[in-house]
Amino acid sequence: MSDTTATMDIDRVRRETPGCERVIHLHNSGSSLMPEPVYRATLRHLEREYLGGGYEAAAAAGEEIEAFYGNCAAMLGCDPGEIAFMENATAAWNAVFYGFARTLGRGDVILTATAEYASNFIACLQVAQWTGCTVRVVPDDAYGQVDCEALESMIDANVRLISITHVPTNGGLVNPAAEVGAIARRHGVPFLLDACQSAGQVPLDVEAIGCDALSATGRKYLRGPRGTGLLYVRRESMDRLPPATLDLHGARWTSASSYRMEDNARRYENFENNVAGQIGLGVAIGYANELGLDNINRRIRTLADGLRDDLENIPGVTVRDKGRERCGIVTFTHQSVAPETMRARLAERGINIGSSNAWSTLLDMTGRGLDSVARCALHYFNTEAELATYLEQLEDVVRA
Amino acid sequence: MSDTTATMDIDRVRRETPGCERVIHLHNSGSSLMPEPVYRATLRHLEREYLGGGYEAAAAAGEEIEAFYGNCAAMLGCDPGEIAFMENATAAWNAVFYGFARTLGRGDVILTATAEYASNFIACLQVAQWTGCTVRVVPDDAYGQVDCEALESMIDANVRLISITHVPTNGGLVNPAAEVGAIARRHGVPFLLDACQSAGQVPLDVEAIGCDALSATGRKYLRGPRGTGLLYVRRESMDRLPPATLDLHGARWTSASSYRMEDNARRYENFENNVAGQIGLGVAIGYANELGLDNINRRIRTLADGLRDDLENIPGVTVRDKGRERCGIVTFTHQSVAPETMRARLAERGINIGSSNAWSTLLDMTGRGLDSVARCALHYFNTEAELATYLEQLEDVVRA
Repeated sequence: MSDTTATMDIDRVRRETPGCERVIHLHNSGSSLMPEPVYRATLRHLEREYLGGGYEAAAAAGEEIEAFYGNCAAMLGCDPGEIAFMENATAAWNAVFYGFARTLGRGDVILTATAEYASNFIACLQVAQWTGCTVRVVPDDAYGQVDCEALESMIDANVRLISITHVPTNGGLVNPAAEVGAIARRHGVPFLLDACQSAGQVPLDVEAIGCDALSATGRKYLRGPRGTGLLYVRRESMDRLPPATLDLHGARWTSASSYRMEDNARRYENFENNVAGQIGLGVAIGYANELGLDNINRRIRTLADGLRDDLENIPGVTVRDKGRERCGIVTFTHQSVAPETMRARLAERGINIGSSNAWSTLLDMTGRGLDSVARCALHYFNTEAELATYLEQLEDVVRA
Repeated sequence: MSDTTATMDIDRVRRETPGCERVIHLHNSGSSLMPEPVYRATLRHLEREYLGGGYEAAAAAGEEIEAFYGNCAAMLGCDPGEIAFMENATAAWNAVFYGFARTLGRGDVILTATAEYASNFIACLQVAQWTGCTVRVVPDDAYGQVDCEALESMIDANVRLISITHVPTNGGLVNPAAEVGAIARRHGVPFLLDACQSAGQVPLDVEAIGCDALSATGRKYLRGPRGTGLLYVRRESMDRLPPATLDLHGARWTSASSYRMEDNARRYENFENNVAGQIGLGVAIGYANELGLDNINRRIRTLADGLRDDLENIPGVTVRDKGRERCGIVTFTHQSVAPETMRARLAERGINIGSSNAWSTLLDMTGRGLDSVARCALHYFNTEAELATYLEQLEDVVRA
């Protein structure tokens, strides 16, 4: 037993995760298993809507809705007024990115990273087409993470935005967000952090990180329902980061030619909430806060480091992780069996892993000569026993 | 008994709507009651996610996900490739509106209606600020609906978009969408129709209407779950109506400087689907299609016309509806009791109605000297007996 179990009751979290009895779920970077309290809270609200009406149910759930903001602010170390509930991480990131993009023009520069996620990079390219701005890619350092020295050397008066993914979708690393944040602050450049894969597995303190905005999804490491996301925007940065879209929830219509935006992060939300999802995500964040993000992170890293070592001992397997600080996402290839084949064969045996294609992090993957990688993303509810079974089955499917 | 019952088994639809046993739900313009098959399908998928993982559940639900596109295309008379699943109606409308807004500049004109919904009007004002374009409001005709003659006379080379709400959030009317569509086609101006309050209560044939894009929500008359919406974009209009945002689902990242958009309406979607919601909405649309939108519309109109007559007979009540073609949304005021007070008092008696403030349709409401209106929005599962009880209780609460 690892010493991390001292600070976390693994039996309890597994009892509260009935999926653990059915599958070995190592696909938490795709979508994790909801804990029972999250599932029950989501269902309870859906039932209220079903039996009594959607608006009526929302009116009765005021406290549960508020808890989302409070729990989220507690997790990030910010004010609840700096939090917006969003439909998903993409919508959250877009609300800031596409709003800011309105202020860009020819000559302006967006700095991003080599292992940037396809969704963000495609958005950058779309905006570059529209505005004439330029997207520049910060190289990796010797560890394979964002090279902060290079980043700082690339900053000049034309750099308008630093947009970086905290934990890339594969590659196992955690980018040095706080170092990036310090550079961004030093030069007065807004810093948008995509925390889609880090929220729920890495402690996030927005003061320590120094980001102006941070986006995340509910369905991954936070263990919330699908169809949920969150956005943090620093209060002082809100005027500089206008919402990409506005509706009657984010703004009040005041005359034929005027409106007034909400003076908090509600301006980034829209009125048509997935209320059951919002309540479920609030419970999920509370659940993570209660376990403690430090505890969660410690346990995930211990499990993942052990798995990397064990994978290296399987003939033909190469671990594809890099970075100075590593996380629960473990990526690897096999010399003869394609990642998607490994995934499919393991799925038949009740083991969920993912695979990640070159086009999801094109610059990184093509730079490393990779077409695709297999991806296990461990969570704190996984156990050494599950990993032992997984390794045994993996050895079998690559022999098959 | 009205003759509409001949074509619809009201007992069955009420049995399949268990909420009917608890409340008299006349708030279908806010959020309707899901039918049992919709609720069960949504829950079934959430359970799959809970027990087996989100991606794994989605992979097993391919047919149910496809059914959303098929049912939606059947409802609208279009091709499934012209349908996008969206997070909600706002996201759906925004995907087209804010994308098209990128092409606007000083001197360009957006035409919209007097009873336009605040969310859309605020978005128009935000875009006007950003681009320098002008928003012009088409006056109402003698019936209180969009004046099509005036609309056509306002079209010149500067008019770039016609953006109109089919059924305003209050006022009881159905705007003459097909007449607007004919004018839009004649002049080659793109026509974006907000069908948020019409989808599910008014038959929608996108060929007959002649719109280039149409947005709707799941939670209102379609009786789907919250956190769902749909978007139709005519295939020939897709290049003219670029998506406001793009991710790795709507486009494939092909090189450091290029991407390729999907050649169908998936380009307007994003990857982070609320899959349980999508499946639920698919079932909800199938349910409506099976009952028949013509039958649904006939029954709703019969009930609503009867209710308007009965309301007029209550001392102090004034019905505030207008328009040539009317729908299930019935709005009224009382000479001394505020709409919000009526709503709250009826809620205590198990009757759900809504109220609508001036700022939700500012130009229309202020033009009519109204601060707010009470709003009952009837659906086909409502009955004459429910309405009799409602009227009795309403008389009582306005006397209280």
